[in-house]
Amino acid sequence: MVNENFEELKHTDVINAMQAAAPEEEAALAELYESMHQKHMIPLWTQIDDLMPNEPSPNAVPHMWRWSDILPVAEKAGELVPVGRGGERRAIALANPGLDGRPFITPTLWAAIQYLGGHEVAPEHRHSQNAFRFVVEGEGVWTVVNGDPVAMRRGDLLLTPGWNFHGHHNDTEHPMAWIDGLDIPLVQYLDTGFFEFGIDRVTDEASPDISRSERLWGNPGLRPVSAVDDTINSPVGAYRWEYTDRALREQLKLEDEGQPATVEPGHAAVRYINPTTGGDIMSTIRAEFHRLRAGTQTRPTREVGSSVYQVFSGRGEFLLDGVKNTVETGDILVVPSWTQWQINAETEFDLFKFGDQPVIERLNFNRRLVEGDNQ
Amino acid sequence: MVNENFEELKHTDVINAMQAAAPEEEAALAELYESMHQKHMIPLWTQIDDLMPNEPSPNAVPHMWRWSDILPVAEKAGELVPVGRGGERRAIALANPGLDGRPFITPTLWAAIQYLGGHEVAPEHRHSQNAFRFVVEGEGVWTVVNGDPVAMRRGDLLLTPGWNFHGHHNDTEHPMAWIDGLDIPLVQYLDTGFFEFGIDRVTDEASPDISRSERLWGNPGLRPVSAVDDTINSPVGAYRWEYTDRALREQLKLEDEGQPATVEPGHAAVRYINPTTGGDIMSTIRAEFHRLRAGTQTRPTREVGSSVYQVFSGRGEFLLDGVKNTVETGDILVVPSWTQWQINAETEFDLFKFGDQPVIERLNFNRRLVEGDNQ
Amino acid sequence: MVNENFEELKHTDVINAMQAAAPEEEAALAELYESMHQKHMIPLWTQIDDLMPNEPSPNAVPHMWRWSDILPVAEKAGELVPVGRGGERRAIALANPGLDGRPFITPTLWAAIQYLGGHEVAPEHRHSQNAFRFVVEGEGVWTVVNGDPVAMRRGDLLLTPGWNFHGHHNDTEHPMAWIDGLDIPLVQYLDTGFFEFGIDRVTDEASPDISRSERLWGNPGLRPVSAVDDTINSPVGAYRWEYTDRALREQLKLEDEGQPATVEPGHAAVRYINPTTGGDIMSTIRAEFHRLRAGTQTRPTREVGSSVYQVFSGRGEFLLDGVKNTVETGDILVVPSWTQWQINAETEFDLFKFGDQPVIERLNFNRRLVEGDNQ
Amino acid sequence: MVNENFEELKHTDVINAMQAAAPEEEAALAELYESMHQKHMIPLWTQIDDLMPNEPSPNAVPHMWRWSDILPVAEKAGELVPVGRGGERRAIALANPGLDGRPFITPTLWAAIQYLGGHEVAPEHRHSQNAFRFVVEGEGVWTVVNGDPVAMRRGDLLLTPGWNFHGHHNDTEHPMAWIDGLDIPLVQYLDTGFFEFGIDRVTDEASPDISRSERLWGNPGLRPVSAVDDTINSPVGAYRWEYTDRALREQLKLEDEGQPATVEPGHAAVRYINPTTGGDIMSTIRAEFHRLRAGTQTRPTREVGSSVYQVFSGRGEFLLDGVKNTVETGDILVVPSWTQWQINAETEFDLFKFGDQPVIERLNFNRRLVEGDNQ
Repeated sequence: MVNENFEELKHTDVINAMQAAAPEEEAALAELYESMHQKHMIPLWTQIDDLMPNEPSPNAVPHMWRWSDILPVAEKAGELVPVGRGGERRAIALANPGLDGRPFITPTLWAAIQYLGGHEVAPEHRHSQNAFRFVVEGEGVWTVVNGDPVAMRRGDLLLTPGWNFHGHHNDTEHPMAWIDGLDIPLVQYLDTGFFEFGIDRVTDEASPDISRSERLWGNPGLRPVSAVDDTINSPVGAYRWEYTDRALREQLKLEDEGQPATVEPGHAAVRYINPTTGGDIMSTIRAEFHRLRAGTQTRPTREVGSSVYQVFSGRGEFLLDGVKNTVETGDILVVPSWTQWQINAETEFDLFKFGDQPVIERLNFNRRLVEGDNQ
Repeated sequence: MVNENFEELKHTDVINAMQAAAPEEEAALAELYESMHQKHMIPLWTQIDDLMPNEPSPNAVPHMWRWSDILPVAEKAGELVPVGRGGERRAIALANPGLDGRPFITPTLWAAIQYLGGHEVAPEHRHSQNAFRFVVEGEGVWTVVNGDPVAMRRGDLLLTPGWNFHGHHNDTEHPMAWIDGLDIPLVQYLDTGFFEFGIDRVTDEASPDISRSERLWGNPGLRPVSAVDDTINSPVGAYRWEYTDRALREQLKLEDEGQPATVEPGHAAVRYINPTTGGDIMSTIRAEFHRLRAGTQTRPTREVGSSVYQVFSGRGEFLLDGVKNTVETGDILVVPSWTQWQINAETEFDLFKFGDQPVIERLNFNRRLVEGDNQ
Repeated sequence: MVNENFEELKHTDVINAMQAAAPEEEAALAELYESMHQKHMIPLWTQIDDLMPNEPSPNAVPHMWRWSDILPVAEKAGELVPVGRGGERRAIALANPGLDGRPFITPTLWAAIQYLGGHEVAPEHRHSQNAFRFVVEGEGVWTVVNGDPVAMRRGDLLLTPGWNFHGHHNDTEHPMAWIDGLDIPLVQYLDTGFFEFGIDRVTDEASPDISRSERLWGNPGLRPVSAVDDTINSPVGAYRWEYTDRALREQLKLEDEGQPATVEPGHAAVRYINPTTGGDIMSTIRAEFHRLRAGTQTRPTREVGSSVYQVFSGRGEFLLDGVKNTVETGDILVVPSWTQWQINAETEFDLFKFGDQPVIERLNFNRRLVEGDNQ
Repeated sequence: MVNENFEELKHTDVINAMQAAAPEEEAALAELYESMHQKHMIPLWTQIDDLMPNEPSPNAVPHMWRWSDILPVAEKAGELVPVGRGGERRAIALANPGLDGRPFITPTLWAAIQYLGGHEVAPEHRHSQNAFRFVVEGEGVWTVVNGDPVAMRRGDLLLTPGWNFHGHHNDTEHPMAWIDGLDIPLVQYLDTGFFEFGIDRVTDEASPDISRSERLWGNPGLRPVSAVDDTINSPVGAYRWEYTDRALREQLKLEDEGQPATVEPGHAAVRYINPTTGGDIMSTIRAEFHRLRAGTQTRPTREVGSSVYQVFSGRGEFLLDGVKNTVETGDILVVPSWTQWQINAETEFDLFKFGDQPVIERLNFNRRLVEGDNQ
């Protein structure tokens, strides 16, 4: 059914080939376009190539930030900028170079390094935006989510789904830095954001080893009978490194035993889920952890939707649309929609990943192209 | 809208009040009924009271079996009856006294004690019926489910959802007994059962401490990216006592701290779930574990659907439609639909519970009446 | 993985081959069985063949009732038996000969002819049981469902989902008969039934051509913004013959035009649905209408779940497990679970069909075997 | 839990109150900000007011376009601009004045007038973007969707869900204009768009009165048994004015009879749905039709998500954040997220409405504030 001749063409090729207007036609057209402009009207035919490309052509670009660049900037901000009411957080966003200087790592996602000095408190607030934190190093801060203090430690994923009051307090003398992921750009784009200030400290300054949410939800395959109604977002405050690490280790051992467990040879991966549904942790953000054996090379893949990786440990390279990025612990990489990505693990290679796939899937725009698969 | 006068009446009261037929009418009626009988037809009006009672009036009755009665019978069977192909299992069903001598504990559920001698093997088969095993004492048997050997130990819940090949082998010199729960009566009633023999032993006679399914699924809040498609029944072979116990203990501690966690004061409870959906472990059977503090008294409750309890530890009493049953470790109790139940815990009281609530809820027949609630 | 040797065997074959017990063993066994009996316990191994057959072996049997037998019986009942409070309805059930004299057409379903004389009223009541009526001939009765009078006419399907008050009144001088379908056996089996009397007449004795529910929901592809929350059962009181007939006619025309529309060549079919979900009209009952061109022969099929057909018009034959049943307008046929069925249409052949497939599917027991398909 | 003092404040108020930096601090800060800029990093604290407002503060503004302005521009384009391969469509977008000159009526939605001269053909293509057309006047064009010719007539809603080939052909001598609605901005924002050219004319130039999709799906409460699997988007090509009009008329009549039917007094409304699910017609776009009696005044309402209205007939006014817009047949209005809207009907007032609510709801950002309701 497809017009074979046009298959590789773009709209503009066709338009250009068709146009050779006489001067008087050009004048009439100019007048028409001006009258449209007056009435806030714009023709499709002059813009269709940008509006409806043959395949996704994101403004966002692949980019990599080094941890060795990010961390010193955050430390400097720790010296100069107070944390507290108004600015709310000492968070520094990674700005995709393709996105016009806006503080967004992808069109939908915000990624920032947050920095909290010894004994500092980031005051409570709540907002429609969904948030998580991932800890690549350090410990000593408790994030208090709806009154439940949640310890933050290396390798942990901590959740603050939309409209939960939350603040952070550093219970030690030492500063701590971590990564924040939010759907700030999406919420701004959709005009869906609400924000409320809470108290100026945190509602519970205790520093328990484990949060109440984990005590309720932290046992595999069990849910409280007092909480059998499903929740939109995960009720779990913390996903601990101990379990993530064990799950990945077991997948690789099972692979060694010849059992199905990994996503491809040498490539173990877990998705963080909402235990009430088995689905993604929050409506707009997917989070996963991937481990590659040294020497593993993933299959070149394109996916609709955008993803961010932070190297948790090890060393390897990302080929993004053919460009090699060598990365190590703490480095952060963004893979825009439909960019071809391939990962090569130099050492055992641990990667935290998050992305906007729940948005893409809920709106039924998901598509995926893996080199070597039948289309 | 309700007819107030009839509210407390039954159909038969009304019918009796209306009928005072003349002899010739009676003869004509008898002839009519006979002609119906010839044609396999039956009038509603003579049967409506049984067919459409004002509220559920089960044939099944509340009943209690003592572990001290059940276990010796199973041991005796262990001496006299071989286990193996044909009879398939040395399982002895608990037969509800109200169900006409059929081996069913409720209209929908089968509960049996199964007994396997030292080094015996129950050969593999598969069937549409969903099954679980719960271990009230002992260890040493591995149930092999689709080739995955699953250790059975005290307090564990083990699953064999429909159409998975499974067999059991005792890896020790000592016999072991446990409880089997299945939906045999429901499958028979609905005429949905298929059965196939497998190999005469088990496909994998290893005796690992932990099954492959647990290694894949046993980490809270995580699922393998290689298994993101939901499954009808839980992919988890074993729910270990360690986690069940911990979950209940934490609920009671949270209650002590003034936090919401228990279903009512002094009453902790967890539901076993399918981690891919957060829902019940199998389409037809719900399983839960309840812990009551010593001295706790639950609120008198009626529910549509039938339930079975086994005392795991402690001592207490069940008031079933006002009749007291004092029970202790191993004893098994059945609570038919709409029977009023209330539990009083003499000591700390641990109860394994299963029932047909997923059937009731999926067909939208669920109703519940708790004394003291607004209706 | 299957044991090839046992594949065609039944349990009993195997058991018989294994048993040749010595007299003293027989005595010990007898004693064991007696002690089980005392304690309400029953061994699996003596019963497994009945409990777990290789494939469904229903007690219900294929059977056919002639309209020319049913209708006169109903008319006679109209003379002899009053309709009204207590007996509630002048309904005569079709009793499957395999079901021990109970008034059930299948294990889950009730099918009855109901008869209402000129100007008679069947008083209001409500019950958990889901009900529908299908009209094979006649008109003049209004069924009033939750206060909404719904005209009953030839070819119409009328719904009374569980717990809606309903009564019927005949607005004419002439009697009318129709078919009632309910899930009475299922509700009795599951012990889920509640019943309440309503007023002694109907709440609205008007006789509008079209019900309020149809005025709200009767426009294809549209739903009221005042009713955007989904309902468990269909909010539609009547599915009119005009639309059913048109839909079937169009499917056959589309087939003539070479377009996909029918389920197999010459076989058009529609399913009645709940417009709020696109799913079955009620939680427990599926209803469909099938039209076969003269000469069409359907493919021999087995399905888990039971079905009932009423011939609406035309003439044809049903082959049920190889037995031929020739039927015509008004005749009713039951097809138990896993019975092989094949329909041959002598003339254009219109069939109303209902069954318990929503129950089977919600519990994930559905299976289907069509001759000629790859398994 | 909320900090009362800050409740009415914005972030910037607080930040300004806190800042009174010494000159040397300002220099250090400037240096820090410059180093961030170099590394593609941006601080949150200087931008939070824009990024996380207290409530949605859209860039898009309320705006109104007059049909009497739009139509002549389209007619002029009809004279000057050919329709055909490359530019693809003679469509002129309505550009929200707040959206930087981009051709988008809201951040997520595209609305355009499309114009097709007598006997012109808009060639086939397909794209990820979901599309519909709504006809405010005229007829004579057939849109051919996946080979199915669908007549376009006054009051009809026609669908072209994503990735269906479609083209249009005018079967008459007269031009025709209509409104196109698509999710072009959303697809561009999410980088999810694919596009393919099809044949240069349409695959079926027939001009049937009714499409094949309507013949299959156009009967209320019925679905083909050959199509019982749900589809992501509606399989229906056309929603005809005849049914929309009847549904609205019946709602107002039911209101007159004292029955629940309308959304508020004097305000009837229907939602166009996917009959396979009862949900919205497409994953990203909701479409409804509203009818207000003369004199009706709707309650002032704010909603998250953006909406577009076209007056179909009658005359009335929209109060948008307190600004009055008087509109009549053909005029188009946009209501951005969280803008307060109220409609006053001068005459009977018929409104076609579409919006991005399925996106908002699937991502769980929906919120609504109706004046007078309890919050």
